[in-house]
Amino acid sequence: MLNPQRTIAELKELRELTADENGAWRVAWADTWLRAREWFNRKLQDLPVEQHYDAAGNNWVTLKGQSEKALLIGGHLDSVPGGGWLDGCLNVLAGLEVLRRIAAEFEGNPPVTVRLVDWADEEGARFGRSLLGSSAFSGTLQPELEKDRTDKDGVRLEEALQRCGVELDRMLEAQAEQKNAAAYIELHIEQGPVLLDMGLPLGAVLGTFGVERHAITFWGQAAHSGSTPMHRRKDAFLAAAKMAPEVYRIAERNGGVCTIGSCVTKPGIVTSVVEECTITLDQRHLDAAALARLKQEAWEASQRFAQEGGLPEPEWRTIWRIEPILFHPELIELCDQAIREVAGVSHRLPSGPLHDAAEVARAGIPTVMMFVQSLHGISHNKIEDTEEAHLELAVRAFDRLADKVMAWILR
Amino acid sequence: MLNPQRTIAELKELRELTADENGAWRVAWADTWLRAREWFNRKLQDLPVEQHYDAAGNNWVTLKGQSEKALLIGGHLDSVPGGGWLDGCLNVLAGLEVLRRIAAEFEGNPPVTVRLVDWADEEGARFGRSLLGSSAFSGTLQPELEKDRTDKDGVRLEEALQRCGVELDRMLEAQAEQKNAAAYIELHIEQGPVLLDMGLPLGAVLGTFGVERHAITFWGQAAHSGSTPMHRRKDAFLAAAKMAPEVYRIAERNGGVCTIGSCVTKPGIVTSVVEECTITLDQRHLDAAALARLKQEAWEASQRFAQEGGLPEPEWRTIWRIEPILFHPELIELCDQAIREVAGVSHRLPSGPLHDAAEVARAGIPTVMMFVQSLHGISHNKIEDTEEAHLELAVRAFDRLADKVMAWILR
Repeated sequence: MLNPQRTIAELKELRELTADENGAWRVAWADTWLRAREWFNRKLQDLPVEQHYDAAGNNWVTLKGQSEKALLIGGHLDSVPGGGWLDGCLNVLAGLEVLRRIAAEFEGNPPVTVRLVDWADEEGARFGRSLLGSSAFSGTLQPELEKDRTDKDGVRLEEALQRCGVELDRMLEAQAEQKNAAAYIELHIEQGPVLLDMGLPLGAVLGTFGVERHAITFWGQAAHSGSTPMHRRKDAFLAAAKMAPEVYRIAERNGGVCTIGSCVTKPGIVTSVVEECTITLDQRHLDAAALARLKQEAWEASQRFAQEGGLPEPEWRTIWRIEPILFHPELIELCDQAIREVAGVSHRLPSGPLHDAAEVARAGIPTVMMFVQSLHGISHNKIEDTEEAHLELAVRAFDRLADKVMAWILR
Repeated sequence: MLNPQRTIAELKELRELTADENGAWRVAWADTWLRAREWFNRKLQDLPVEQHYDAAGNNWVTLKGQSEKALLIGGHLDSVPGGGWLDGCLNVLAGLEVLRRIAAEFEGNPPVTVRLVDWADEEGARFGRSLLGSSAFSGTLQPELEKDRTDKDGVRLEEALQRCGVELDRMLEAQAEQKNAAAYIELHIEQGPVLLDMGLPLGAVLGTFGVERHAITFWGQAAHSGSTPMHRRKDAFLAAAKMAPEVYRIAERNGGVCTIGSCVTKPGIVTSVVEECTITLDQRHLDAAALARLKQEAWEASQRFAQEGGLPEPEWRTIWRIEPILFHPELIELCDQAIREVAGVSHRLPSGPLHDAAEVARAGIPTVMMFVQSLHGISHNKIEDTEEAHLELAVRAFDRLADKVMAWILR
């Protein structure tokens, strides 16, 4: 019988083992993370499952079914440094509870194979490369591009992986795990305030936002703050600053979100007009065409503000970009149904942050995610939290989703 | 006979002695500066003058006249690191040429006493305290507040002064030099583009701007760039950025200048809304009431922008402030006349940067400055420059001003 209270108890047990007063420290490839994985593997002892690590360090737990077609359930035990008690591990432990329920109900032989996966290094907290294990699984990883990555102490990614038995050059062999995968489901805390604001415990996720991430540099001219009349200034900060309200207007017109997260001024002294100003702009949308408009309109605005201030064309440097990834419409519908059955009401929403589910979807495997409300709308922080009543609802709804998707696989 | 070409030759001689391809290195209290002062003192050998350093390290050259009442002529040989060939030393060397002319014309005994002063440490480049010598002369220096000053290598101001024979605690004794001072005149490059834009070689300076200099911190809330809807954000950068165009509007309404020279964002990462944003604001005006309005309107705007964004009251921290210092109306008129006689046309303008003349005026001594056009409107840089034809006009007009002020002293 499904026991959501056990999931909550196990989450607390894991917190006890891997967190302190500053949050959780399950950073991928580090000792605390390895300890969390060992702890998890011990939970499997009484279950009729096979467990192994793939070539990318993802941990696979397989409950063989009557059909080789497999339902995949995923999450990640790794956290950011000083992270919360739910991000990633809720998915793994709720998945474990669902696996237990299915194993018990079908006496170790469910109608379809069920596989629980703990992805390696979802956060990318140490080496700046998120979705590492799941991108090896999907085949989008390009190992040769990751060769030069180091952490802030200069340790190379390749070494850190080797220490855990993973060869960077062979990580793509994890694609073998795609065999017979018929669907993928993932439960996650929302990490935003949408469900909180609506007073809803659960939501069905439409997909993950595409991202356009750029650094924009405006070039002005340094000039003495006392002796330079206002009309003679070429003020790089003025042009950059105009972008701030503008990106709010752009998001209002097109939907999605736009964030200027950083502003650096040079020479950056109190007695000089700003000569050079660089801002970062992060834009996200679920719709590819709308995302392109977000970027285009911001680009046009930057040109206009530069011209207004007598500045040359600003420089746009791409930091990162990814297309929107849409989840499977039929699985979204099943997710909605499962939520309504448990919580009475559901809501469909996009995911701002990326998740391993996006990589699985990129591999062509029908995918959906379920979100549970985040208190404060905050994650990646020790204050990350969700009401226990909502966690219990989440495990129940996720379990129903697993049943519905198993039936869908056999449709 | 006045020989402005000699002034230009001597400026080049000094450049040869104290500058390299990166600019001038006559930083106060350092060896190159001391070398410049020795070079200058050697120029006095054939003149009927008395020379001594006062308790603040200011170098006084006195040509005794029939009256003890003294016309003071001032400048400074010290420069910023990598400075230009004119800032400060034009005044000293033009003053020297005027002194030579007066000494020759009156056979060593002019109607009033004429005193040339090379102020110590006008720039404050090494210890961050500008107008050091002239503020000791005026009595506005508070030596106990300067005790803890160090340069970037940790050398204490007090030690650096001692090495040059100056005791910090006794600097105010330089006030004795105020005795019999009847007027003060100073020639300086404009360091801004006003005369350049008007196509004029020379201008009469109305006074130095008062300054209100503050750091303003806006407090928002860090939030994930992907999962936080735009309307839920408390964006510290948005509020701070709105100040940029606003201070231009404020300066347009009230005159004067407003500069946001620095912007610092925290956490300052591409994936987070800005939690904390600090900008510096430097505001200057010749009129005290208008300066107060500049500050008040900026303060009100900062409150409004914080409120609009759901932020708490921003913090205003005073970095520095000084009242406007107006020069003497009759001396301004004499300066205008001198310029018109030499250049045909004059213009009255305020000074954005501070000058030693401001300290002299604060001591109650009738004061005026003359500006000569700056090419590029730039100083504190090796590219600082002025056309030689303009330098020659400047020496001629400044010499006429000296004559007019001597007559005015005896009026």
